[in-house]
Amino acid sequence: MSEKALDTSGAALLPQIDSPADLRKLSVEQLPQVCGEIRQFLINSLADNPGHFASSMGAVELTVALHYVFNTPYDRLVWDVGHQAYGHKLLTGRRDAFAGNRKFGGLSGFPNPDESPYDTFAAGHASNSISAALGMAVASRLKGETPQRNVVAIIGDASISGGLAFEGINNASNTPNNLLIVLNDNDMSIDRNVGALNSYLTHINTSRLYNDIRYKSFKMLKQLKLVSEQRRGALLRFNNSLKSLLSKQQNIFEGFNIRYFGPFDGHDVATIVRVLNDIRDMEGPRILHLRTVKGKGYAPAEADPASWHAPGRFDPESGTRLDTAPKPHAPLKYQDVFGNTLVELAEKNPAIVGITAAMLSGTSVATMQAAMPDRVFDVGISEGHAVTFAGGLAKDGMRPFVAIYSSFLQRAYDHIIHDVALHRLPVTFCIDRAGLVGEDGATHHGAFDLAYLRSIPGMTIASGRDEHALRNLLYTAQAEDHGPFAIRYPRGGGHLVDWKNNMHALLIGKGERLADGSDVAVLTIGPVATDAATAVAEAQRLGIKAAHYDMIFLKPLDEEILREVAEKKCPIITVEDGSVNGGLGGAVAEWMTEHGYTPTIHRLGIPDRFIPQGTPGELHTLCGFDAPSILKAIQKSQEK
Amino acid sequence: MSEKALDTSGAALLPQIDSPADLRKLSVEQLPQVCGEIRQFLINSLADNPGHFASSMGAVELTVALHYVFNTPYDRLVWDVGHQAYGHKLLTGRRDAFAGNRKFGGLSGFPNPDESPYDTFAAGHASNSISAALGMAVASRLKGETPQRNVVAIIGDASISGGLAFEGINNASNTPNNLLIVLNDNDMSIDRNVGALNSYLTHINTSRLYNDIRYKSFKMLKQLKLVSEQRRGALLRFNNSLKSLLSKQQNIFEGFNIRYFGPFDGHDVATIVRVLNDIRDMEGPRILHLRTVKGKGYAPAEADPASWHAPGRFDPESGTRLDTAPKPHAPLKYQDVFGNTLVELAEKNPAIVGITAAMLSGTSVATMQAAMPDRVFDVGISEGHAVTFAGGLAKDGMRPFVAIYSSFLQRAYDHIIHDVALHRLPVTFCIDRAGLVGEDGATHHGAFDLAYLRSIPGMTIASGRDEHALRNLLYTAQAEDHGPFAIRYPRGGGHLVDWKNNMHALLIGKGERLADGSDVAVLTIGPVATDAATAVAEAQRLGIKAAHYDMIFLKPLDEEILREVAEKKCPIITVEDGSVNGGLGGAVAEWMTEHGYTPTIHRLGIPDRFIPQGTPGELHTLCGFDAPSILKAIQKSQEK
Repeated sequence: MSEKALDTSGAALLPQIDSPADLRKLSVEQLPQVCGEIRQFLINSLADNPGHFASSMGAVELTVALHYVFNTPYDRLVWDVGHQAYGHKLLTGRRDAFAGNRKFGGLSGFPNPDESPYDTFAAGHASNSISAALGMAVASRLKGETPQRNVVAIIGDASISGGLAFEGINNASNTPNNLLIVLNDNDMSIDRNVGALNSYLTHINTSRLYNDIRYKSFKMLKQLKLVSEQRRGALLRFNNSLKSLLSKQQNIFEGFNIRYFGPFDGHDVATIVRVLNDIRDMEGPRILHLRTVKGKGYAPAEADPASWHAPGRFDPESGTRLDTAPKPHAPLKYQDVFGNTLVELAEKNPAIVGITAAMLSGTSVATMQAAMPDRVFDVGISEGHAVTFAGGLAKDGMRPFVAIYSSFLQRAYDHIIHDVALHRLPVTFCIDRAGLVGEDGATHHGAFDLAYLRSIPGMTIASGRDEHALRNLLYTAQAEDHGPFAIRYPRGGGHLVDWKNNMHALLIGKGERLADGSDVAVLTIGPVATDAATAVAEAQRLGIKAAHYDMIFLKPLDEEILREVAEKKCPIITVEDGSVNGGLGGAVAEWMTEHGYTPTIHRLGIPDRFIPQGTPGELHTLCGFDAPSILKAIQKSQEK
Repeated sequence: MSEKALDTSGAALLPQIDSPADLRKLSVEQLPQVCGEIRQFLINSLADNPGHFASSMGAVELTVALHYVFNTPYDRLVWDVGHQAYGHKLLTGRRDAFAGNRKFGGLSGFPNPDESPYDTFAAGHASNSISAALGMAVASRLKGETPQRNVVAIIGDASISGGLAFEGINNASNTPNNLLIVLNDNDMSIDRNVGALNSYLTHINTSRLYNDIRYKSFKMLKQLKLVSEQRRGALLRFNNSLKSLLSKQQNIFEGFNIRYFGPFDGHDVATIVRVLNDIRDMEGPRILHLRTVKGKGYAPAEADPASWHAPGRFDPESGTRLDTAPKPHAPLKYQDVFGNTLVELAEKNPAIVGITAAMLSGTSVATMQAAMPDRVFDVGISEGHAVTFAGGLAKDGMRPFVAIYSSFLQRAYDHIIHDVALHRLPVTFCIDRAGLVGEDGATHHGAFDLAYLRSIPGMTIASGRDEHALRNLLYTAQAEDHGPFAIRYPRGGGHLVDWKNNMHALLIGKGERLADGSDVAVLTIGPVATDAATAVAEAQRLGIKAAHYDMIFLKPLDEEILREVAEKKCPIITVEDGSVNGGLGGAVAEWMTEHGYTPTIHRLGIPDRFIPQGTPGELHTLCGFDAPSILKAIQKSQEK
């Protein structure tokens, strides 16, 4: 903590705040100025270096208030999904570094404990904050720390609808702890929220009168020093009966025995500071409900918060978006090839339904929702439910297409095994963002799906090398009942401008030879075929007879190709945009050694460590499976 | 459906019921007799052929009522966890086959769609029924089936506390459907329930007056034909305001906009039939709350339902348990070696805490709970929370030992990656029931953990060959900070009578040579070492120079051993009680082919299909990794 006083004579405040300790030197009256400066900083910075805009804009006041009231980093702030945490980064010594947000070698786009002691926990996957914060609160109690360490989970109204958050709440009320949950309620996830809990939150305002009275009576009791732990039970009962007299609403949180405060205006920083001071030292679990506006303080974002979630570059003055202009003759994103194809297939096959977990736009299932809303289900941040629900639909004759990002599908691993694969139900898993995703970094890379799906009996696992192959795979999955069928494709744009081929069914487990040769065989799965083809062509130019096979299917493997390759008795190089352990390379190594063949096999892919953020190109190079790296591996395979 | 009439002149009824259609020929007055006969059948059958006793005893009346009122199998019953479904099996044509319950080639101990059209969905992992049933209800609506197909999820009060059930409820209220949820509330899971939802259910009885009045007013409106879909909203609002006048309880379910009926006596079959008839054809999601007694109708089980969950054999007259007598000089179960060792370690290391997910007795974390209750957390059926909570504890200095069965840990796969491994937190995963578990069958086998953990960066993954090794691994995991550390061990008894060695730290990634030879090398991990050692000894007797290495660590691999093995230039056989895809065999194949070695590798383990129930011995033979199968593989490796 610096001992310097801040210049508050009208000078800008944010440039003087190098840590929350500096913030705490200010008066409450100065905090709105800090909030304004944070907003302006975010607008200027993100206009040029894209990131998650609207969520952080909505969380400015609560961020300032939390660091002002709590003794961070001794007190713990646990952010649920980092979208909302840019203000937190600015206040915790990363103002200058923020220009490198989401860049290779720069700041992570999410809170990251490896980056700052103020970042307490991983925050890339939603709904984990309450459980993690409960762990910290219990640790502090068990260690008998003095002063009592406060732990605060800050969770959005979308994240709180996930099953993990429910499990956290259910356990928080059952565990001795002093956990504070701040519900940042902007009535949005990335798209609009769904589910009963959300409707509930939307209507809780009607109990305003009750909450006002209750809050005031609590404050009065506190000033009279009547609020001791011994009296807490009685107070809670008093509150509940008061409530039942004043409110027609059922308060879910108090049903869970968690003391509830709110809703308050999440943009009134003085009020938030006052309430936080009042409830800070209370014992037991508490929830503070703040109403916020996603995109607050920037009119274009307030008007269209969904598309300003991560808007790309924009002109800060006019709000004109700079990255949205359609580029003629540019290939579509893979997700849009999927989204459009899903509609095409669903128009002909009435059994198809589309399912997404809070990612209507992100997966482009929105395209089908626009065309046939009755057959699309956005289940919210509930990947497990999405898959089990799909299992039920498939059991009674439907053909669900479940579109979930690879790293989020990890949440539904057991559901894939137990609720789909065990009874061979025809659910198609459309695994978007498979492989390295770029700027979202370690928490979002889809590194593990090939490995974690491969040991599941009866799964078909495939990835096409281009948009036509993706479309053919989607067609194949619904043309017959093949049981569970996983199709993975990467984030970002494809290769083909004319993506709309006439689809046809592929033979399950049949790959394709793209180039022949007998010095080395390159085996790929998915769009990495393009870089591999470049490397193979260059190798051939250099006189190395390199073969190239697009396996298309990880499972079942094309044994005909494997035998053909094995008979060449040459080195093998496998390339996949996934973990080098247990995926394509592993499957080929298992098959070869089991069948008495003895090639050397060099596996290229995502190495056995967590990979940070960067552009996909930077990361492919880092991981060693861009075209030059593949060429190098080909050349190396020829050394004796 | 048979057209025969039933002999109701005082004869036994159950022997005449070959399907629910027969049941529906009876009058309501005859149903208690059927219930009594089902109970007696279960007592007699399970006394001799052990199974899950107490849960099914408690669900007899609701089972009879559901099949009586609903047109099964056209109407769908979706059981949540099959413990409660034995009565269902008896009523649906499996009375005679029930003698083979849980036996190899016999009935599955859980509902199994491959076994009967009355079994609609997999029911081995808790909390999935609402999501699956919602899928079926939505499928029926989308297909426009006539008559409307009724779908009923039957879920226990423990299962409903899982995050997946919450996601299902949250979505059920948001989706057009006619789903009925029957809450079978016996206030128990296998052990006592935990969590806020459970306390809530325990107290809901106080709103009895409200519910009575509401139920009667609903019936009256129905008789007057005033209950149409258009009026449903108004009716619900009427109900809610009625409630707020009459009840001090907050009804969580109606907070979620699901119409709530209950609680009713779950052992009054006539009442259940009457209520089910009343609410059967209502539109929209409904929940019927039944209070039941676990073990109902058998005094010893009612008195001690936890230990009668799966009591083993017993004398039906006296209730004397026949499998609980301590066998002198018999090895402890692995779970008890773990449980006792955990206490030993925790006594010396104050940072250790124990975590289990509704399996205090099953994992023997109960031993630590008895010794130091403040340091043990039973989080209920919430595997995801268990792991993320452990991450929070570890982040702030504790050393959590999380004991979860292998197949249930699948629910926490993402949490292991994102909330523990990503930041190298020192959480020890004590993976019980790893490998084939025997009689619980396909849903419970721990087949995948080696494969699904191996691609996670920074995980240490180990399995000792006996109790001493297990204890040394547990010691090692807490002696230093090795980051996430997974230790797997099987269901059932170990090998050593004197299990209590003086523990010491093992070198991470260091295996052990158990036998030397140069004709073939057998590499094992975990207690399969015993069968492998038997096979290796026999092979040596037959003149085959077989080496045997206990790898102990799947990750990191002992590269010194691998190099030693590779230099022998002999065939390799890997043996693991886990999927042959992606586990030890896969890891060895990857390493060998990557390092330019060219052995043939034959992988023994759980083959690439779902394995049914049976004794562990039967299943090891079926899967081909008992001692004779390993010997056969050794011999085959010597053929040219």
